[in-house]
Amino acid sequence: MADIKILTESELRQCVSLDRALHDRIEHAFSQLEQGDVVMPPVLSMDLPSVNGEVDVKTAFVPGMDNFAIKVSPGFFDNPAKGLPSLNGLMVVLSAETGIVTAVLLDNGYLTDIRTAAAGGVAARHLAPASVQTAGILGTGVQARLQLKALLLEREVQRVRVWGRDRDKAESFAQEQAELHGIPVTVSESIEALVLESQVVITTTPAREPLIRADWLHPGMHITAMGSDAPDKNEIAPSALAAAGYLVVDRVSQSLERGELRSAVAAGVLRREGPFTELSAICAGTAPGRTHEAQITVCDLTGTGVQDTAIADRALQVADIHGLGTLIHS
Amino acid sequence: MADIKILTESELRQCVSLDRALHDRIEHAFSQLEQGDVVMPPVLSMDLPSVNGEVDVKTAFVPGMDNFAIKVSPGFFDNPAKGLPSLNGLMVVLSAETGIVTAVLLDNGYLTDIRTAAAGGVAARHLAPASVQTAGILGTGVQARLQLKALLLEREVQRVRVWGRDRDKAESFAQEQAELHGIPVTVSESIEALVLESQVVITTTPAREPLIRADWLHPGMHITAMGSDAPDKNEIAPSALAAAGYLVVDRVSQSLERGELRSAVAAGVLRREGPFTELSAICAGTAPGRTHEAQITVCDLTGTGVQDTAIADRALQVADIHGLGTLIHS
Repeated sequence: MADIKILTESELRQCVSLDRALHDRIEHAFSQLEQGDVVMPPVLSMDLPSVNGEVDVKTAFVPGMDNFAIKVSPGFFDNPAKGLPSLNGLMVVLSAETGIVTAVLLDNGYLTDIRTAAAGGVAARHLAPASVQTAGILGTGVQARLQLKALLLEREVQRVRVWGRDRDKAESFAQEQAELHGIPVTVSESIEALVLESQVVITTTPAREPLIRADWLHPGMHITAMGSDAPDKNEIAPSALAAAGYLVVDRVSQSLERGELRSAVAAGVLRREGPFTELSAICAGTAPGRTHEAQITVCDLTGTGVQDTAIADRALQVADIHGLGTLIHS
Repeated sequence: MADIKILTESELRQCVSLDRALHDRIEHAFSQLEQGDVVMPPVLSMDLPSVNGEVDVKTAFVPGMDNFAIKVSPGFFDNPAKGLPSLNGLMVVLSAETGIVTAVLLDNGYLTDIRTAAAGGVAARHLAPASVQTAGILGTGVQARLQLKALLLEREVQRVRVWGRDRDKAESFAQEQAELHGIPVTVSESIEALVLESQVVITTTPAREPLIRADWLHPGMHITAMGSDAPDKNEIAPSALAAAGYLVVDRVSQSLERGELRSAVAAGVLRREGPFTELSAICAGTAPGRTHEAQITVCDLTGTGVQDTAIADRALQVADIHGLGTLIHS
């Protein structure tokens, strides 16, 4: 009936990568959320305890874009023991005009990885202090690497501290990232020491018990919490969230259900009604970014469908220009 | 990372078609719903009024099947004016063990069409009277054709009456279906006459106002209502639903939200708590089918993810046997 473009992970890696242009694109997509004509339904979330897995489906329809994406993200946590990655998935791209499938992006989670990091970059752009001597990274996985890269695209950072539950992985991370970015990256013995030293802290863990306590916060610091994306995860102690001078989330409804707001509301230290600021309002200019040097800012990211649609649309544009992909007639 | 099989609509048409074997398969999938270990989250539903469209995403994880499907069903209702079908879409198939994408079924809605009809066949198998002189079909579209075929696979029918808002389409339907099945198919002037004459009535319309009234029901008849799949649709008057002696639905939670139960509960003639019987219980043998000749039975079908997973799994099995499909390495 129609020609459908199939793009593989390696082709998609040629089309989009994590850079300031992607930050701009994701920032613009967030700003469109504020126009109120974006349709972004709640996440379809499927828990599969019998196979230690989960699947999330996210989507958003953004008027003005040629296409919209429906993103399927499975996470199967016994995979690493089988030599397979936990996370993968794909994006289905539909025409915004006819709903007909225009493309299938077999990205194995690559596009999700970089659109997630780019949201961190956008948060840093608006909320990190102008001067960052030390950045602290909690976690040593893919997002730890990508979030650090996104931060470095937005701020000059003098040194990086990293903490991970697995000391060996933290050491490897430090060595690899120091070489990659040409700045000192060292392992921190404790989360407390890391937070106290850092002007920007990025949390990228699947923690179910809070890692960051309120009494470690200090004036002028910014925290981006991107680990919690499910109702049983929590990286920031409720009291620490309540102590932030400026609390920003990517989507209030999602953060209340599956992000840091959930545990803080459950603990009774925050009210469901807020006040919370959405990152989209900052991107659209209807809410401020950091307003003064001493402000303590926290941004909780749960991941939104509008990021998926934005990166899929961009990837397809570039693929068309370069003639990448396989056409299947169906 | 992995080889992903891409199957086109024409290949999928070679793999599965609407026959009694498919009824068996869908019946078995429904019966597994009763075991309580199927994971079937609520439908992700996206309304897109600005483009007169909608998208539904359905899925179900069925223990024991190698794969599970995530089905994307767009409906864009300005398409026919552009010479395009309203409905299309695809299924993404994931390994039940690792969550890795194993296949993409570019079916343009074909698999949805036949798994929907097969559920009607299963409903007829258990609920239609043993002897059906006249079957009445409301609607003249794809499902009108397929539901008739499914009924004829389960019951010997002497004649068919059809009603449609568009008289010309009804005439074409009658002529085409009479030739196809070798039985008389004629157009009914009114829905009332059609219902009064028929022992089985199948409604396949997108009606927003009820078509079937309570005082037309008569002993021994069965109605399958498959048109309503959204919160603004309604084919059976609430009082007619309340008058049924045996009320069966494919999924109570879905029918309460987007099926015939919704309007009947809203009208106050049925309680949210039921009693309602799920088709899965009948398929599993924990609830009866039709219990006596004079019983008036109604079955409301909204379409479930377990049907999608069952048909996708079957299509892939056949495709593997016949070596169909294109492998993409990603």
